[in-house]
Amino acid sequence: MAVLITGVAGFIGTNLSKTFLKKGTTVYGIDNLCRGEKKNINKFLSSNKFHFLEMDINDYDSLYNQVCLLNKKESIDQVWHLAANSDIPAGVADMEVDYKDTFMTTYYILKLIKKLNIETLVFASSSAVYGNLGEKKISENDGPLFPISNYGAMKLASEALISSSAESFLNKSYIFRFPNVIGVPATHGVILDFIQKLKLDSNNLSVLGNGTQQKTYLHVDELIDAMHFIVANSKDKINYFNIGNIDDGVTVKTIADSVVKLCSPDASISYGSENRGWVGDVPKFNYSIEKLLKLGWKPKLNSEESVIKAINQILIKLS
Amino acid sequence: MAVLITGVAGFIGTNLSKTFLKKGTTVYGIDNLCRGEKKNINKFLSSNKFHFLEMDINDYDSLYNQVCLLNKKESIDQVWHLAANSDIPAGVADMEVDYKDTFMTTYYILKLIKKLNIETLVFASSSAVYGNLGEKKISENDGPLFPISNYGAMKLASEALISSSAESFLNKSYIFRFPNVIGVPATHGVILDFIQKLKLDSNNLSVLGNGTQQKTYLHVDELIDAMHFIVANSKDKINYFNIGNIDDGVTVKTIADSVVKLCSPDASISYGSENRGWVGDVPKFNYSIEKLLKLGWKPKLNSEESVIKAINQILIKLS
Repeated sequence: MAVLITGVAGFIGTNLSKTFLKKGTTVYGIDNLCRGEKKNINKFLSSNKFHFLEMDINDYDSLYNQVCLLNKKESIDQVWHLAANSDIPAGVADMEVDYKDTFMTTYYILKLIKKLNIETLVFASSSAVYGNLGEKKISENDGPLFPISNYGAMKLASEALISSSAESFLNKSYIFRFPNVIGVPATHGVILDFIQKLKLDSNNLSVLGNGTQQKTYLHVDELIDAMHFIVANSKDKINYFNIGNIDDGVTVKTIADSVVKLCSPDASISYGSENRGWVGDVPKFNYSIEKLLKLGWKPKLNSEESVIKAINQILIKLS
Repeated sequence: MAVLITGVAGFIGTNLSKTFLKKGTTVYGIDNLCRGEKKNINKFLSSNKFHFLEMDINDYDSLYNQVCLLNKKESIDQVWHLAANSDIPAGVADMEVDYKDTFMTTYYILKLIKKLNIETLVFASSSAVYGNLGEKKISENDGPLFPISNYGAMKLASEALISSSAESFLNKSYIFRFPNVIGVPATHGVILDFIQKLKLDSNNLSVLGNGTQQKTYLHVDELIDAMHFIVANSKDKINYFNIGNIDDGVTVKTIADSVVKLCSPDASISYGSENRGWVGDVPKFNYSIEKLLKLGWKPKLNSEESVIKAINQILIKLS
């Protein structure tokens, strides 16, 4: 079996590749190394099961030609499309960022799948497609879908195109709405942000927002376990699932306290006055994974345990 | 007051312009005349309140420069963005059609609105964003949104981008999910199709599908009345409404019978065997306009009366 993974050198792509290679699956990996980093995949390059293409998906002709060659060697059963912008504020400031990196990559991947007759697409969507639905516990069939970031908008646009493709050429698709995922080698996110701030000033941690923002977090190991589980067990034409944790989440204040405790116990913490960090940041997020629980998967670590695990991993990585 | 209407020479654009000009509003109209027709707007060209720009919205630099000049003469209060692909099967066959004409036009219009600080966007979305939700009566907040045509997908993608823009620069937006709209000068649709077939062969009308497909229809005059009503009476940041009829709709068979009766009473009608016409065509569609009724608007003609009115108008136009 062979899979094509886009965004292979990113946070999720790196961890996903590891699980496929462990199972003996051939991995064709694509990354333009804009946000993904070569060092994340260096350890895979010695394997004859791993083939890396450094390229931009939006350069379609080159994408098609190079993937075509690989597909002739061993044909691709699944595309795992993870490539996207991962810097939400950058995408809010400039609409073009998510249009190109989050939407157009999906457009060209679908074009490729159609051309090469690939069976299955697995797509990393996001809870950001739901926008701000307030206090409601959000299930997969809830609406309206009015994202508040261009990132969320272009993930929803990608879902829409996958959905219409399923009607005409795409045999099977998996749409996974990711929660906040933490672990290593994360390139962004609140934990990394706090650790980096404390590295610059070990006496004070300044937090955007008032710290009451509460979110659930899932560790990347569990996310990947859940994705493999769904692909193995759900066989609809379009399989769409929230993936996340089952607790009520932790506040930014709890994360700040945990980071300070593990990094720099004597540091003071200062907070802003608003209940959000930046445009496009949803203050409180309440996410139902009932559908996934019903399929038979559940997370092993709650949000707070996931946060502690991630902090420790990042500290080891940075040390 | 001045409005910018995209797709001004199309079916809805023509009828909308007429109502604005009647009220004394300045209309800046854009059309690339690919599907819209110059003859539809010829009658407006003598008015000093009507300014026509023949151009493609996707040629952004030219769009910006030309609209900028008009905006200096009399500043634009509202953009009514109607331009889109209107040939759904063409968009299913080639993903690029709706990507360019339905999605990218919205992308560039939003870019223009941001640049020129225009207050309000009115967007012609579609019931196609809902995909095929089966027998369920569809309300605005229902999901999941899995369109089955690229047209529906790119309308949903446009909605998503309008929604995220509302979070950062767009002051007010109206998202209207259109039903099947009929009247003149329609460029496509089942009524026109039947009339044209009977013009070629007055003895037989061959119908795609088995004729049991049932849909509601709204006359274009009512659609436009509803849009003006909503813009005048709903003042949220994002105002999103299904617009449609309140009856259960009419079947394709009823439409075929009515067309035959009015066009060529002796013709026979032959049907296909499937309950749909083409990929992307939703067999039965059940649409709730409760939200619009609650705001205080309701249609004057039911689906069947709308069909009869449209057939008669098309016959007069073609005679």
